[in-house]
Amino acid sequence: MDYVRDAWYVASWSHELKDRLIRITIMGENIVLFRSSDGIISALEDRCPHKSLPLSRGRIIDDAIQCGYHGMTFGSDGKCIRIPGQDNIPETAFVKTYLIVEEYNIVWIWMGNKEKADTNNIFKLPQFDDPAWKAHQGDALYFKSNYLNVAENLVDPAHVSFVHPTTLGNPEGENVKVEVDTSGDIITAWRWIRNAPPVGFFQSFGNFSGNVDRWHYYYLHMPSIAVIDFGSASSDLKIKEEERHKGVRVFAIHLLTPVSETECIDRWMHLRNIQTENDEVGASMDAMFRIAFDEDKEILEAIQEEELNSSSRKPVRLAIDKAPNVYRIRIKKMAANH
Amino acid sequence: MDYVRDAWYVASWSHELKDRLIRITIMGENIVLFRSSDGIISALEDRCPHKSLPLSRGRIIDDAIQCGYHGMTFGSDGKCIRIPGQDNIPETAFVKTYLIVEEYNIVWIWMGNKEKADTNNIFKLPQFDDPAWKAHQGDALYFKSNYLNVAENLVDPAHVSFVHPTTLGNPEGENVKVEVDTSGDIITAWRWIRNAPPVGFFQSFGNFSGNVDRWHYYYLHMPSIAVIDFGSASSDLKIKEEERHKGVRVFAIHLLTPVSETECIDRWMHLRNIQTENDEVGASMDAMFRIAFDEDKEILEAIQEEELNSSSRKPVRLAIDKAPNVYRIRIKKMAANH
Amino acid sequence: MDYVRDAWYVASWSHELKDRLIRITIMGENIVLFRSSDGIISALEDRCPHKSLPLSRGRIIDDAIQCGYHGMTFGSDGKCIRIPGQDNIPETAFVKTYLIVEEYNIVWIWMGNKEKADTNNIFKLPQFDDPAWKAHQGDALYFKSNYLNVAENLVDPAHVSFVHPTTLGNPEGENVKVEVDTSGDIITAWRWIRNAPPVGFFQSFGNFSGNVDRWHYYYLHMPSIAVIDFGSASSDLKIKEEERHKGVRVFAIHLLTPVSETECIDRWMHLRNIQTENDEVGASMDAMFRIAFDEDKEILEAIQEEELNSSSRKPVRLAIDKAPNVYRIRIKKMAANH
Repeated sequence: MDYVRDAWYVASWSHELKDRLIRITIMGENIVLFRSSDGIISALEDRCPHKSLPLSRGRIIDDAIQCGYHGMTFGSDGKCIRIPGQDNIPETAFVKTYLIVEEYNIVWIWMGNKEKADTNNIFKLPQFDDPAWKAHQGDALYFKSNYLNVAENLVDPAHVSFVHPTTLGNPEGENVKVEVDTSGDIITAWRWIRNAPPVGFFQSFGNFSGNVDRWHYYYLHMPSIAVIDFGSASSDLKIKEEERHKGVRVFAIHLLTPVSETECIDRWMHLRNIQTENDEVGASMDAMFRIAFDEDKEILEAIQEEELNSSSRKPVRLAIDKAPNVYRIRIKKMAANH
Repeated sequence: MDYVRDAWYVASWSHELKDRLIRITIMGENIVLFRSSDGIISALEDRCPHKSLPLSRGRIIDDAIQCGYHGMTFGSDGKCIRIPGQDNIPETAFVKTYLIVEEYNIVWIWMGNKEKADTNNIFKLPQFDDPAWKAHQGDALYFKSNYLNVAENLVDPAHVSFVHPTTLGNPEGENVKVEVDTSGDIITAWRWIRNAPPVGFFQSFGNFSGNVDRWHYYYLHMPSIAVIDFGSASSDLKIKEEERHKGVRVFAIHLLTPVSETECIDRWMHLRNIQTENDEVGASMDAMFRIAFDEDKEILEAIQEEELNSSSRKPVRLAIDKAPNVYRIRIKKMAANH
Repeated sequence: MDYVRDAWYVASWSHELKDRLIRITIMGENIVLFRSSDGIISALEDRCPHKSLPLSRGRIIDDAIQCGYHGMTFGSDGKCIRIPGQDNIPETAFVKTYLIVEEYNIVWIWMGNKEKADTNNIFKLPQFDDPAWKAHQGDALYFKSNYLNVAENLVDPAHVSFVHPTTLGNPEGENVKVEVDTSGDIITAWRWIRNAPPVGFFQSFGNFSGNVDRWHYYYLHMPSIAVIDFGSASSDLKIKEEERHKGVRVFAIHLLTPVSETECIDRWMHLRNIQTENDEVGASMDAMFRIAFDEDKEILEAIQEEELNSSSRKPVRLAIDKAPNVYRIRIKKMAANH
């Protein structure tokens, strides 16, 4: 599997980490997370080095994890600090640890070489701090799909008409060509569908009476975070690319975490420039996102299952694949770079 | 697995193919079936050559299949006729197709070399067109068993007393020897149980007051279709072999389709020479067949599970195995003949 | 897997063997058990040598097993005595048999070389025949764990405080050192926790008003039977090791049967020196044992799952592992000795 280890991934939302041990799996590694009394989050290998019981089966005692089998206790630094019934603690009594950073209510984990970790590279958007925008943390979907297919899907405007015909797309977008820019670090793909009826999402949140100009800009940050800037404005306004702020505009953010070769988690949040004070609008948007993302999940899981069947056939490449293809090439380079 | 590719298999009953896409699996190959507006049925490889989504997840649009991911559309001949957002269609944009023939409300598929396909070889019986007989299409059972063990069971009169003691057999048949004829293309095995009480089936459908002469003739057509001619007549009549039409006579037909190395589908229908106008009798017989075939299913699935365990033991061969053994030898030859 | 074949294992409790066929699996071998009309229990390979149907799918007829497919019938000695429809019985028509001995309502099976089987080596305790003691047969738990980890757990007093904090242990035992004696055939480990509150079990069955001296003696009989002598006496009595009979004393006996490389069965019974006439006390103790053993099951199954993940890490060895380590070494020797 092409895993990119030297990167920040989302381990959980902040609110999931209260006073209990949380087991997560990233790139096939089982990790236990817990929050100490000072609020700091630690991430340890979830396997006691004695008899292999997952530490997440144990208990938090004085900001350390006590194994549920024989009580071996490990601190935030992974070192064993107690072995019941024995005074000396051997040097081999430790578990691996992972770097954790918490920002904007998101818990980030670094899976690679700690020396290469730079917290400045943790994903954020300027709008996180902009009062004209409202951020709304969503939920998470577990996909029985490798993360690469899901990421591709997030830089692929062309699927929207077919996978989301009643929520995020409609037939008017079917034949509209996709623009792509792969010159920078962020792979970008976009489409404008001008002078067409609003899609389901903007019927609900736009109050449009006539046709709209609709845009989808997909920004794929390596290795697995996507920002989808999409919105609509009355076609009467004839807005230009750079005038999107004049319309109803939403950033849907997908934070993908690879779980295994055939599984990943898609956590999402959104930012919006309308009704920023109204939490109910955030919850309603979220509910519609869940419907749409379940549509993606169904398609991507069917593909994963099909990919597990052998096939000697080489896939057909289409014009719409330009951004996904560049993404795959970059992932391969980054994965090899360890 | 000994698959015989150059043969006609049942893909479905005609009535299953209305206005939607049907996914079937034969010999491990996933196939999508659909009926066009002119009534013709097509069979395509169920995997889009672009991103591998099964085409059966898409939609029928104008007698073609539109993929549910990006809208690539394939005609009955397997060729792509539309790629949304792109004008040229590359030559590699096609899917494999299979020959389909529909006869007597049965949908037949040819899995092998199309040049060898001959529709004259599609299974049928003269009684299909004989007004003295009534054909009744039954149902289908999915067996977690390789198709070879199921086919063997259908040329094996000796199991009836033990597997179907209350429906198709009774203890009087236990020690009666099996006759076998393997001289022709159709492997035949048969038994007469003379002057014994009627079995459950003929208690229900025969109105016999005393003992009966009962026969079971098993005709196994290569590679996986069986006709079981079974019936009963009052022992007072002392009927001869060739006088079976004087008794209550039923042809149970099993149409086996190999799904994978450990799975198959058993579709059945019957013909009868009594109460040909009474559909309720057909439904009642069918209900009793289902009970009996579920008894076979239980046995054959237990055997499949056991066969997956390794064993160094060579099976014991019995006299009753003559027909099954000839069947296996023929299958091996036919499977090798590709 | 390190299976020790030349040993007596529990196949079932006597009461499980009434008038029907029982299928069990030991060391990956499927075996059918049945009791003849003279009360004798037989154990046969659970696979008909004809078509591989498990014989346990058949019926008992005249103290023999009739296969459910074609009626081949096998006697207690594994030899075929009847083939319906055929007079001669080939010499290859037999199934493997296993030695069975029934003692004290326990059905024992010998999995190895029959010539090495010695019924004098079947596990028993002098207390089985002692009227001062009451034996109570318990139940059985199916563990998704290899039997070795379960056996280790049964010579490991140190886990009690952490796995059974409310039933068999409490925090007062956490740091008490474990004594071990591996000089004899039976591996022994023990601890005394003096002058501490009684644990849940002895709160229920001891009627203690103050602190108690509590002992746990673990006797592990090779390859997979454990006797746990545990009890409590008022601390005022200051009893010595050899005076355990003066306290409330219970022998919990675990009889492990390896099912496969990742599964085993833990059957338990107990002996007690109090309220020997009161069956309700036996049932109540048993109910508490089940709660405690479910706690072990949860831990051991989590470990089994974790062990199936690859790890390059060598386990850390602790002082408390002395008895388990000796156990593993002996098992390896015994398993190699075939």
